[in-house]
Amino acid sequence: MSVAAAENRELSAIAAAMAGLGAASRAAARELALAPGDVKNAALHAMAKAVRGAEAGILAANAHDLDAARAAGQTSAFIDRLTLTPDRIEAMAQGLEAIAGLPDPVGETAASWDRPNGLRIERVRVPIGVIGIIYESRPNVTADAGALCMKSGNAAILRGGSDSYETSSVILACLRAGLEENGLPADAIQMVPTTDRAAVGMMLKGLDGTVDVIVPRGGKSLVARVQDEARVPVFAHLEGLCHVYVDAAADLDMARDIAVNAKMRRTGICGAAETLLIDRACAETHLQPIADALIAAGCEIRGDDGARALDTRIAPAREEDWSTEYLDSIISLKLVDGVDGAIGHIADYGSDHTDCIVTDDNGAANRFLTRVDSAIVLHNASTQFADGGEFGMGAEIGIATGKLHARGPVGLEQLTTCKYVVRGAGQTRP
Amino acid sequence: MSVAAAENRELSAIAAAMAGLGAASRAAARELALAPGDVKNAALHAMAKAVRGAEAGILAANAHDLDAARAAGQTSAFIDRLTLTPDRIEAMAQGLEAIAGLPDPVGETAASWDRPNGLRIERVRVPIGVIGIIYESRPNVTADAGALCMKSGNAAILRGGSDSYETSSVILACLRAGLEENGLPADAIQMVPTTDRAAVGMMLKGLDGTVDVIVPRGGKSLVARVQDEARVPVFAHLEGLCHVYVDAAADLDMARDIAVNAKMRRTGICGAAETLLIDRACAETHLQPIADALIAAGCEIRGDDGARALDTRIAPAREEDWSTEYLDSIISLKLVDGVDGAIGHIADYGSDHTDCIVTDDNGAANRFLTRVDSAIVLHNASTQFADGGEFGMGAEIGIATGKLHARGPVGLEQLTTCKYVVRGAGQTRP
Repeated sequence: MSVAAAENRELSAIAAAMAGLGAASRAAARELALAPGDVKNAALHAMAKAVRGAEAGILAANAHDLDAARAAGQTSAFIDRLTLTPDRIEAMAQGLEAIAGLPDPVGETAASWDRPNGLRIERVRVPIGVIGIIYESRPNVTADAGALCMKSGNAAILRGGSDSYETSSVILACLRAGLEENGLPADAIQMVPTTDRAAVGMMLKGLDGTVDVIVPRGGKSLVARVQDEARVPVFAHLEGLCHVYVDAAADLDMARDIAVNAKMRRTGICGAAETLLIDRACAETHLQPIADALIAAGCEIRGDDGARALDTRIAPAREEDWSTEYLDSIISLKLVDGVDGAIGHIADYGSDHTDCIVTDDNGAANRFLTRVDSAIVLHNASTQFADGGEFGMGAEIGIATGKLHARGPVGLEQLTTCKYVVRGAGQTRP
Repeated sequence: MSVAAAENRELSAIAAAMAGLGAASRAAARELALAPGDVKNAALHAMAKAVRGAEAGILAANAHDLDAARAAGQTSAFIDRLTLTPDRIEAMAQGLEAIAGLPDPVGETAASWDRPNGLRIERVRVPIGVIGIIYESRPNVTADAGALCMKSGNAAILRGGSDSYETSSVILACLRAGLEENGLPADAIQMVPTTDRAAVGMMLKGLDGTVDVIVPRGGKSLVARVQDEARVPVFAHLEGLCHVYVDAAADLDMARDIAVNAKMRRTGICGAAETLLIDRACAETHLQPIADALIAAGCEIRGDDGARALDTRIAPAREEDWSTEYLDSIISLKLVDGVDGAIGHIADYGSDHTDCIVTDDNGAANRFLTRVDSAIVLHNASTQFADGGEFGMGAEIGIATGKLHARGPVGLEQLTTCKYVVRGAGQTRP
């Protein structure tokens, strides 16, 4: 058999496996959509117990994955994300229990009203159906994403990074055991049974109408590939190019604290600030104290000429700095002409994710909050609050910057859709 | 110049025109998003006045379009949809005034709550941005769709059927005059400046990120093309294969009235019933009276063997009848085994649009309402109520059967998205 023929044969085998997986997901989704909340919660607790009970097996599989990843020369950051420890496994189990504790959105009446003809109209939350999750080699996402989908009544098709395949497989078995123990369909949580990338392409095309939405979890290149290739809707953000704008009417202490927290609390998350905009009108008083605090916290600053004229420790920024998501201890700094200058800069360079204004002037604040077209806009609070948990929405599967369906943190409610239930007494339409 | 070179040159010209139109839309959308409700309403009233004032011009342009359409051999139904009369022009003006009377969703706080750390979180409705509408040669859609988009703060890019181009152009001028008179950007409502189909393809690809959503309005082939080719989200339904299920516990009079109304009130709308399902357990008592009423109303019935055994006037149904949207005075009829038989048939053949159960048994009703996965499910009411106006949502731009963002009638609220506005007092994240 030629190489091409062998490849074709392998592709057909993957396509057949994916079609079967899709059909099983669809069937499981229909069943899961009707499951009562307490049964789903019992399954989540059973999953947590199974994860704890499988600690040795998870660690053994993880050791395999780690050996292979090290042999493949993966970076230490990559290895760290892939590594599980007894503590991290316990955290995973606790995460499952926390999801059990969240309110179940399915069946909730989002709105209801009566019509003059006596019809009663209800908008009721129902699961979306089948959700595909594509993520990097972080085995904890297997538990987290699978559980969030299940709790919201959706079937999940998981496709994690190939380097975490063995670890994720053992975790998956725990999740499925928890489902089965409670009479729920195990196929409500499935993993793509191959590390071949062709399977990802098939998922992105929707498996013949089976996949309702794709959620990518990972870095920019993963999200970009998913957004480019997906033929079904995607809940995602490509990057978090978040801005902190310090207005002339800002309290200096507050501005400094927010700037340092927004940038430095955790530099690797999407809500971390990447650009600091300072009102030219207060630059002489506000820039240096804020720069002092950032530099003291270990941050490199890259600024425009105006900023550098006020503080020689600031390195020169290049045009590309305004559109760079550093995810590191670096921040770009630009002087702008008041709130409109800030709004203009964010319109040109922002990523529609999260942006903040620090000011005591409510007029300026409202202008910023209204005109900046981002999923999250904040007044006098750190951009690092951009998180479903911090919003009080419970666990989130990600943050979306698209405008349709889910914008901002994607929690359980955003993983549902609505249907209209209309109750009458024989009404016909005149 | 060769034919191919000439075609290329023309395509480049269209691409350039569409890019310019897209950029103008985007700019107009930003401005329109900030327009107060009373200014938008004043513009709608000015549009209505302009439409009334332009009656002669609209009728003249319409006469041109009609001559060309007749010469091209279009059907009489097509000609009817294209035809405007003074009455229809007045109805169009009244439609614009009715949209002015609807509440403005923009700026509404959909939800708000406080966090333990003092953060105040608001979910505020904002316009989506730029909406592309692709429709057939029905000039009234120009006014209707343009106005709904504008009222919800969105810029509209309209592309109607080429046979209505002249008529729509005059109507468009009225809409733009209404915008300009009120200081709003005229480019908030634009029409694709060519009847070349290549422009439609460009719209469907999103004009380089400009078009946020496409709404097709028209028959199945138009919607199918849009759904196939669009690379941006689409709010639409491909067809309305609506079912009326008459349960054994149905009141016969009610079942008969609902069946006749659901099928025959207007046969050409998406909420018209196409298939009648009758519980085998009541077929002997219920089938014939319902068939009598349908036949008396001028309806042809195509049934399965069980139905035909009970009523010889029923023609034989073929397999394809169960998946045919007749949009005509024809209904298919099948005997099913109780509510689960009905649910199964709808899962196999339905189009996720609107389905109804007639029964006095609330248990059966709830089973149907919960398990039928359609945008709208009704108990004891006609499927012809599937309409934004009948739901009390005001005018609708269409009905969506997709599950994301907008499901069911797409009114003003569904043409908005949300952003999170967070107000703090200097909070940083621990």
